Amino acid sequence: MEKAIGLGVVGLGRAFTLMLPTFLQDERVRLVAAADPRSNAREMFSRDFNAPAYEALEDLCGNPDVEAVYIASPHQFHAEHVRVVAAAGKAMLIEKPLAISLADCTRIVELAAQTKVPVIVGHSHSFDGPVLHAAAMLNSGIFGAVRMLNALNYTDFLYRPRRPEELDTRQGGGVVFSQAAHQIDIVRLLLGGLIDKVRACTGSWDSSRPTEGAYMALLTTHDGAFASATYSGYAHFDSDELMGDVSEMGYRKDSTAYGAARSRILHMDAAREAQLKIAGNYGGKDYRFKASPATPYHQHFGPVIISAERADIKLTPEGLVIYSDAERKFVSTPKRPVPRAEVVDELWDAVRLGLDPLHCARWARATTEVCIAILESAQTGKDVALQFQVAPSRPVPNPDERELRDEYDH
Amino acid sequence: MEKAIGLGVVGLGRAFTLMLPTFLQDERVRLVAAADPRSNAREMFSRDFNAPAYEALEDLCGNPDVEAVYIASPHQFHAEHVRVVAAAGKAMLIEKPLAISLADCTRIVELAAQTKVPVIVGHSHSFDGPVLHAAAMLNSGIFGAVRMLNALNYTDFLYRPRRPEELDTRQGGGVVFSQAAHQIDIVRLLLGGLIDKVRACTGSWDSSRPTEGAYMALLTTHDGAFASATYSGYAHFDSDELMGDVSEMGYRKDSTAYGAARSRILHMDAAREAQLKIAGNYGGKDYRFKASPATPYHQHFGPVIISAERADIKLTPEGLVIYSDAERKFVSTPKRPVPRAEVVDELWDAVRLGLDPLHCARWARATTEVCIAILESAQTGKDVALQFQVAPSRPVPNPDERELRDEYDH
Repeated sequence: MEKAIGLGVVGLGRAFTLMLPTFLQDERVRLVAAADPRSNAREMFSRDFNAPAYEALEDLCGNPDVEAVYIASPHQFHAEHVRVVAAAGKAMLIEKPLAISLADCTRIVELAAQTKVPVIVGHSHSFDGPVLHAAAMLNSGIFGAVRMLNALNYTDFLYRPRRPEELDTRQGGGVVFSQAAHQIDIVRLLLGGLIDKVRACTGSWDSSRPTEGAYMALLTTHDGAFASATYSGYAHFDSDELMGDVSEMGYRKDSTAYGAARSRILHMDAAREAQLKIAGNYGGKDYRFKASPATPYHQHFGPVIISAERADIKLTPEGLVIYSDAERKFVSTPKRPVPRAEVVDELWDAVRLGLDPLHCARWARATTEVCIAILESAQTGKDVALQFQVAPSRPVPNPDERELRDEYDH
Repeated sequence: MEKAIGLGVVGLGRAFTLMLPTFLQDERVRLVAAADPRSNAREMFSRDFNAPAYEALEDLCGNPDVEAVYIASPHQFHAEHVRVVAAAGKAMLIEKPLAISLADCTRIVELAAQTKVPVIVGHSHSFDGPVLHAAAMLNSGIFGAVRMLNALNYTDFLYRPRRPEELDTRQGGGVVFSQAAHQIDIVRLLLGGLIDKVRACTGSWDSSRPTEGAYMALLTTHDGAFASATYSGYAHFDSDELMGDVSEMGYRKDSTAYGAARSRILHMDAAREAQLKIAGNYGGKDYRFKASPATPYHQHFGPVIISAERADIKLTPEGLVIYSDAERKFVSTPKRPVPRAEVVDELWDAVRLGLDPLHCARWARATTEVCIAILESAQTGKDVALQFQVAPSRPVPNPDERELRDEYDH
């Protein structure tokens, strides 16, 4: 194998905490530097990885060991941070949401186009193995055109510890920016990317957490396919029970822990809640790195059922159930030993092999456009027409074939 | 108990076949006459029930034993048959859909209002015990206002044996008229009845069965609640697997029978298929009455999840799962020994007790209006505003209390 990609990290918060197991286990990347305004996070990083941690992004970009930068800063800083990193000619992995305005998304798209640095936007759950597997299978055409898709997810998202701005839609808070970014990315990938119009409703039902906690969106494509996406983060019904009690992160869930998220923050003021969040993430006082135990399950983002002309496909945490004209059968999606290895696949393919990323800036702008349209349609009560939609830049890789190639490479 | 209601039946076809177990087992009704153009069906009825069977509805209406008429003729005859029965001053149970045009629905509404005869429209699955149970519980207000609802159903509807007109939307064929009539009735009852606007898409993906086989609808209410209803009758994914493998009729399903509906009619021409349908129903050569074996399960119409301000409720074939702020708990819905006893409840309450039916003509017109709006929105790609919506005419009875009253009555 070629040399691991030297990765610098901007922002050692929640997103980094969730990606760390991947960076530690995937031999194709190596953490070589970080930038964060919090000194305790910097100190922890330097100690853990024997690598420099800077206060300023510019200094990180000046480090020649850094080949690619993982931009995991709060999304309001993304456009500015992309400018700095692109100017330094480094490849980028940018956390979702790419940005929360189309103007910022377009700035990033243009920076990527001008500087020709590879840009990958993720992780999002459209990188999950079964999603890619289904997309590759549908692209092959064996089941005819995709006609309808139903996606739903009921979680406790709104009651996880939050910073105040995460409960303010104008600052990118709420489930549309945070969670539709996953669900719509999945829907777009499976429908072929080109959403035509969006009609949606949003719900904000808890005045103590005054942002969208739920939405329903009806999406239509130019060629007459349609999809329904439903999300609730109100910590009541948990749709993981429809996924075999497997959690979003791919672990068997303790189903006796009902109500834990809500009761944990009950009677807690905003400042204490924000501290609780910080304390549990990288650099925080309660943070302890736990190596991810092996899991047979893929990560997922709730039940998804795709209807093509000659088959329905249901995503599961282990693969796909295919309901064709002739038979119902389960097809296992190969489970990579490294969680979210699919994100590193795209980074590796872009940086080492020069391939266009699937989750490029234009792709992510199109997903953000749908999210913004969900908010707009909920306000106006009308369809919102879209203009930045794109198809995948290349065929979706079939996880089956990827595994074979990886085995050959190593 | 007071004397059983003498029931005359118009149309001894599929709908009657499905209601027969109810009429045979429920002591509150007695089959006293029938009308049907098919002589073999009439002969079978006279033999089975030792009761007259007429060719003409007028003759049935002239029979003094007939207190109420079950109008189970094809829906294009409903308006005319209602006119005849109303003129005779008899109560009516009218099969859904009430009619397939708003003009016909309005004729029926006006006939009912002018003659003051009780009109009940059903059976539909909004009579199912858990639906009524959830509606009664939500009406009580303990969980706050209903804000969102998700209903879906994936069946083999389109591949069950059909007469040609059942595959022609202009004649009331397709899943919108036949199946949305159930699903929308459920959604309306749980949301409070008053749908404001409809945005929908329909799918017609099999040119050999050229009618709508699928739809997705986004419904909004005046007070900002919203619902998504998804249906596919394309015989691929079967959402009964999300209902514990319990069928629509409340029986444990044989999950090895995948693909049976499609393969049964494969290579069959339209005439043979229509014969197959007729043969299996009352009066047909293959028809054998089978007493319904006891089942612990309620009938259902696919997964439904309701989100109120302080709880989500999931319908199951045995009752409700309530996911409130504090706890998740299962609440059993009392299972009546007679299937669809809830339909006879409304008939009995109207004819013997003089109560307004919940499933009255105005209620059914409002559901039909939504169905027609689904077709219209799919054509225009826009929201359709509604004008005939009504709230339930009386509080939804709680099945728990009904059972107590019935026990007391007997």
